[in-house]
Amino acid sequence: MSGPICVKDYEELAKEKLPKAVWDYYSSGANNEQTLLDNQQAFTRYRLRPHVLIDVSQVDLSSSVLGSTIDFPICIASTAMNKMAHPSGETAVVKAAEALNIGFMQSTWSTTSIEDVTAAAPNALKWMQLYIYKDREVTKQLVQRAERLGYKGFFVTVDTPVLGTRYRDVRNNFSLPSHLSLENFKSLDPTTKMGEVSGVDGSGLAQMVAALVDPSLQWSDIEWLKSITNLPIVLKGIITGEMAKQAVKANVAGILVSNHGARQLDGVPATLNVDFCLTISFSHQIDALREVVQAVDGKCEVYLDGGIRNGTDVIKAIAFGAKAVFLGRPILWGLAYNGEKGVRGVLEILQDEFKTALQLMG
Amino acid sequence: MSGPICVKDYEELAKEKLPKAVWDYYSSGANNEQTLLDNQQAFTRYRLRPHVLIDVSQVDLSSSVLGSTIDFPICIASTAMNKMAHPSGETAVVKAAEALNIGFMQSTWSTTSIEDVTAAAPNALKWMQLYIYKDREVTKQLVQRAERLGYKGFFVTVDTPVLGTRYRDVRNNFSLPSHLSLENFKSLDPTTKMGEVSGVDGSGLAQMVAALVDPSLQWSDIEWLKSITNLPIVLKGIITGEMAKQAVKANVAGILVSNHGARQLDGVPATLNVDFCLTISFSHQIDALREVVQAVDGKCEVYLDGGIRNGTDVIKAIAFGAKAVFLGRPILWGLAYNGEKGVRGVLEILQDEFKTALQLMG
Amino acid sequence: MSGPICVKDYEELAKEKLPKAVWDYYSSGANNEQTLLDNQQAFTRYRLRPHVLIDVSQVDLSSSVLGSTIDFPICIASTAMNKMAHPSGETAVVKAAEALNIGFMQSTWSTTSIEDVTAAAPNALKWMQLYIYKDREVTKQLVQRAERLGYKGFFVTVDTPVLGTRYRDVRNNFSLPSHLSLENFKSLDPTTKMGEVSGVDGSGLAQMVAALVDPSLQWSDIEWLKSITNLPIVLKGIITGEMAKQAVKANVAGILVSNHGARQLDGVPATLNVDFCLTISFSHQIDALREVVQAVDGKCEVYLDGGIRNGTDVIKAIAFGAKAVFLGRPILWGLAYNGEKGVRGVLEILQDEFKTALQLMG
Amino acid sequence: MSGPICVKDYEELAKEKLPKAVWDYYSSGANNEQTLLDNQQAFTRYRLRPHVLIDVSQVDLSSSVLGSTIDFPICIASTAMNKMAHPSGETAVVKAAEALNIGFMQSTWSTTSIEDVTAAAPNALKWMQLYIYKDREVTKQLVQRAERLGYKGFFVTVDTPVLGTRYRDVRNNFSLPSHLSLENFKSLDPTTKMGEVSGVDGSGLAQMVAALVDPSLQWSDIEWLKSITNLPIVLKGIITGEMAKQAVKANVAGILVSNHGARQLDGVPATLNVDFCLTISFSHQIDALREVVQAVDGKCEVYLDGGIRNGTDVIKAIAFGAKAVFLGRPILWGLAYNGEKGVRGVLEILQDEFKTALQLMG
Ligand SMILES: Cc1cc2nc3c(=O)[nH]c(=O)nc-3n(C[C@H](O)[C@H](O)[C@H](O)COP(=O)(O)O)c2cc1C
Ligand SMILES: Cc1cc2nc3c(=O)[nH]c(=O)nc-3n(C[C@H](O)[C@H](O)[C@H](O)COP(=O)(O)O)c2cc1C
Ligand SMILES: Cc1cc2nc3c(=O)[nH]c(=O)nc-3n(C[C@H](O)[C@H](O)[C@H](O)COP(=O)(O)O)c2cc1C
Ligand SMILES: Cc1cc2nc3c(=O)[nH]c(=O)nc-3n(C[C@H](O)[C@H](O)[C@H](O)COP(=O)(O)O)c2cc1C
Repeated sequence: MSGPICVKDYEELAKEKLPKAVWDYYSSGANNEQTLLDNQQAFTRYRLRPHVLIDVSQVDLSSSVLGSTIDFPICIASTAMNKMAHPSGETAVVKAAEALNIGFMQSTWSTTSIEDVTAAAPNALKWMQLYIYKDREVTKQLVQRAERLGYKGFFVTVDTPVLGTRYRDVRNNFSLPSHLSLENFKSLDPTTKMGEVSGVDGSGLAQMVAALVDPSLQWSDIEWLKSITNLPIVLKGIITGEMAKQAVKANVAGILVSNHGARQLDGVPATLNVDFCLTISFSHQIDALREVVQAVDGKCEVYLDGGIRNGTDVIKAIAFGAKAVFLGRPILWGLAYNGEKGVRGVLEILQDEFKTALQLMG
Repeated sequence: MSGPICVKDYEELAKEKLPKAVWDYYSSGANNEQTLLDNQQAFTRYRLRPHVLIDVSQVDLSSSVLGSTIDFPICIASTAMNKMAHPSGETAVVKAAEALNIGFMQSTWSTTSIEDVTAAAPNALKWMQLYIYKDREVTKQLVQRAERLGYKGFFVTVDTPVLGTRYRDVRNNFSLPSHLSLENFKSLDPTTKMGEVSGVDGSGLAQMVAALVDPSLQWSDIEWLKSITNLPIVLKGIITGEMAKQAVKANVAGILVSNHGARQLDGVPATLNVDFCLTISFSHQIDALREVVQAVDGKCEVYLDGGIRNGTDVIKAIAFGAKAVFLGRPILWGLAYNGEKGVRGVLEILQDEFKTALQLMG
Repeated sequence: MSGPICVKDYEELAKEKLPKAVWDYYSSGANNEQTLLDNQQAFTRYRLRPHVLIDVSQVDLSSSVLGSTIDFPICIASTAMNKMAHPSGETAVVKAAEALNIGFMQSTWSTTSIEDVTAAAPNALKWMQLYIYKDREVTKQLVQRAERLGYKGFFVTVDTPVLGTRYRDVRNNFSLPSHLSLENFKSLDPTTKMGEVSGVDGSGLAQMVAALVDPSLQWSDIEWLKSITNLPIVLKGIITGEMAKQAVKANVAGILVSNHGARQLDGVPATLNVDFCLTISFSHQIDALREVVQAVDGKCEVYLDGGIRNGTDVIKAIAFGAKAVFLGRPILWGLAYNGEKGVRGVLEILQDEFKTALQLMG
Repeated sequence: MSGPICVKDYEELAKEKLPKAVWDYYSSGANNEQTLLDNQQAFTRYRLRPHVLIDVSQVDLSSSVLGSTIDFPICIASTAMNKMAHPSGETAVVKAAEALNIGFMQSTWSTTSIEDVTAAAPNALKWMQLYIYKDREVTKQLVQRAERLGYKGFFVTVDTPVLGTRYRDVRNNFSLPSHLSLENFKSLDPTTKMGEVSGVDGSGLAQMVAALVDPSLQWSDIEWLKSITNLPIVLKGIITGEMAKQAVKANVAGILVSNHGARQLDGVPATLNVDFCLTISFSHQIDALREVVQAVDGKCEVYLDGGIRNGTDVIKAIAFGAKAVFLGRPILWGLAYNGEKGVRGVLEILQDEFKTALQLMG
């Protein structure tokens, strides 16, 4: 056997293939990357207790998100600017999702418009990730276009009033290559430069967020969003019980327990759990996922992203109440390595590992 | 002094001697090998509290397993395909067991048939490890042949409905060299290929297990097994109290607390214990061995395997209620280094270290 | 972007620029430097729990120390002999403080006199750090001069009856280069050698402390100090609740929770907290800052220094009750790299990181 | 400053100077050396809580052992065969003890006889460490000779019924160089070979212990010892409360909390304490020293050895109830580096560090 056999292999292959600035943008986390490391290590802190002598010849991996069935509980998280990884960009990713019948969450900042994505994979289960712009009109247009195209819900990112400091992007003056642009904004008004990301003396993305994204976003804006769409709304970026309770009060359909792949505030808990020695200190943090699940008490769906790299990681998240998990970087590694085939490869490996682990768990 | 003086020395010497694919097969664990590392580290997490000023000029090391006396409580766990380590294979191993008067557990997948093993060491204390095949007739024949040959019991492996993913075997398309075969199956029907292990695009062993071993095995099958033999049955591969209680209900004679040398499901607890920081999290796991011992409450015998490399490891397992411990890889290192003499060397070192440690414990 | 973008960058650049003996003096801690490492690691032991969907378009960073407003709660701790880092020495440092409107604590052992510092930055918020000399007359003169020059308070260092052993300084026979001197003592009596630091067979600083600083200092001396000045007095170097209570009894205006940058007694707690596993042992130590804050119960101000290197470190100290934090070494790195501009660079980075972190905390 | 300035420096210098087999013998611990490492790390697990503003201009370092005053509470533990480190051997060591007025514990297996040691340093405070021989007559003669020579007590080593396995000595077939011998046995009967240590196929010391030292030693032998001497008896090698209680019942004058420098049974607790995470597991072990101190409840003196390398280590042991600490290897490093002067150097460094630490503790 040659070729990649686990997510780590894909990561190494992607690192070899990608230009340094792109690799840096994709792989880095905020500041000292303490939380980035912890997101993955968190999974090693749970132990599995298998049952034996149970018939595991048939196992059902399916689950559902916001009412839509998926073949296995591993979906694709929004990551910006996929064409930097591979010319086929978001098109390749959504096609892989369609083929395997799992969900695809498209970033507001995709390098393929939602129209083109829909054309490429009309039958895929698609949701749209939303950043809410200072210019609410822009936001409204995005919402209405997605709704019209058959997207099944919105994931509103609530952890990004300003962009976290990612040292590597700052050093690289991170910019989107000039032949690419954030395609969702092109149709708005071709003369504005809303689709460009260009860094002068620091990260271009941080500068764009400062210029366009609304740092005054508040709970009332969720009301406003609900007033302009009937699609279900998920809040992406909640990691505490307090916030989860407020989300339930705001009547959202779901919560994605996420710390933005550790790219926003370094030092927040890993999404799965925190090392025992450390939780004592601050206040009552236990494990982010468990805390959120307990807080919502069944009143909305809960998912998790951050650090999922093995089949057993999926088991652990599901065991604590997540209906599905989402993948950020692993999808980018697959895409960078081999376009749609690479994305499928990553998903199939995790599906397989998840299945084997379920069977061995009994 | 030259030559190996501790188990670690044997491991290094074996690594030098073995072809890479064989070394990989013998040494590797499932997936990221977290549990593999932990199996050994677990022993360092207990501290010994010695007594002093006690007469230790005479110490009795003997114990018993399923009614048979052994000279010291260290036996040999089933490992498949020993002839890859050394041409003398299982024959050498069983002879060492006979010489030192400890027990030998033969793998279903041995490269020497149980008939030849018996011929080589008629007086050795022997048990047979069983995989239960989809084809129950095959299983029944194995059971009856072993019974007839004087084997003293069956160790039914219950942690392997499917084979765990061992990345190194996947990469190597692991196969049994063509001049070798799983000899126990030869006599069944020479035209079938049940004795071959040949990997195409992945681990050949995983493919064989998927094809032949029964993933629908359940507690009722233990009943069936009891209906076809009068020999005592031990369940190999239980690491939780819940499962141990079910085993007691099923009236088995013993439980081998084992995670299959960490080769099946990565992320399960080490067989001895789990680091304190980690146990909090999942549910009520304390220490696998202690949990099992408490659950069975004396109603059957308990043994342990996994990570035993020093005399003090043996003391710790015995102290928590194991009647004996079993060695997997250390036996293979001894065999690879020097055939029967090597296996004896490993066993004698551990016997000596165990004796010294007992004396120093008072 | 080129040039340093975080405190760590400044540290590396300073290391390249400084002569080894100066780098050693600045960077080292007492003995095995266990506490030195721990001062920084302590911050990683707390986790942040952000709020979301809160308007963070406006954030107020200001705070106050001893009644004086500062633009953000990060001030400059006293470090001796700044001219070894850069010819502009303390002058550059105080100017940066003035420009950014934060406070500057001047060391007794500065290589610029308090008169020259005042002339360079008349509008800066300045405090004087005091060592109390065996010769009380010397001490009294320093106090009165600082008072006259408009300094706003005294930070009395209470953790230095003798100098801690810093192995690197011992090896280097650490001395102040002969073209520099401790300028505050020059005016006293030009014939004495009180301004020289010259090491024979060991650290010159340790020898000077042994010769001049009073090891019999006690609580009654704080009374004496209060009898000769009306300015507020802060005790620098308290890390336990017991001592904090005595300080409150002594009616001081504030406590700087500090272990002297881990340069005095190796093995004391980090100023923020102690790893859980370790606190059990000794007595009732929890977290130094929290313990002090609880002990003073609002009766005086509390600040912290030691190991602050990121914006989130500041958040954590403030969250537990510090009104401001102080920087020792980071200021020296900025100074060494680029004089006043370097010091401003360091302060601005931390101000920025603190602001971003506050916004992301909600 | 050149030359060694801390114990670690002496260790490095000794390593350079000593032949490998001697270095190995001196530095090694039993088996995997887990306890060896832990003996030193234990000290880093306690934190010091200093008092401030206390007059520390005068500090009294003196203590006493078995009624004899010592100038500071750091004495010399018995280590065998000192002439392998330096031709002046035990003579140099006892002279250093005499000069600094601390105690010297002489090994039964010294390469200088107790007669010659006494002649070299008649005024030194001396105790004799005893191994009890199968041949009680030999033991009795040693006891009576020491008593006659003015030794002030016996340290009976109770942790060595057999010698621990030290892999490096086994590999080296450790032997005492033929020009040296265990001088205390020479006068007994020049034709026996009791003074030789010569390894055939393994450690010569282990072989000697097996041949001569009594593994049936028990509490009644302490009675016997008391019947033949009036000098106080200290048990060396107790690390649990249970054993300490038995020692009190046996009416001994003192207990030396020791694990033989981690050379006997690997996996026993460090003499100071055990990492929290690990104590949970086995039974009720907390911290060896504290446990012993609590168990004896003032009924005899308690000392500690093992891993003392810094002045703060001494503070921590004293704080938990040790009247004095003993040094094993550090004395050998000093001796190897520079004979008597080296031994004094090591002791003076620790005396100085201990004094500074006491002053900084307040
Ligand atoms: C390169 C990259 C770009 C991302 N872009 C977005 C984005 O545009 N919007 C968003 O809400 N989250 C974004 N995320 C966060 C992901 O949606 C997701 O939360 C995270 O990647 C999950 O962690 P993982 O990468 O460890 O799987 C991005 C993450 C990465 C790695
Ligand atoms: C190379 C190898 C082959 C094995 N084959 C079998 C097997 O055929 N049947 C089985 O029940 N266990 C098998 N095991 C697991 C062992 O019986 C035992 O549980 C394990 O090796 C104990 O851990 P240790 O290797 O750390 O001593 C195998 C283990 C190894 C390392
Ligand atoms: C090179 C250096 C010199 C120092 N000199 C003094 C001093 O003269 N007086 C004093 O009270 N503290 C002194 N300190 C301690 C600092 O005021 C402060 O407590 C410490 O540096 C804070 O820790 P940090 O360096 O990790 O920020 C010094 C620290 C350093 C690093
Ligand atoms: C080289 C060496 C030889 C020793 N010989 C003896 C001995 O003859 N009798 C004895 O009771 N302890 C002996 N010990 C143990 C010491 O008395 C002491 O318990 C130990 O060295 C203390 O630990 P430390 O080396 O970390 O200071 C020896 C230790 C060493 C390192």
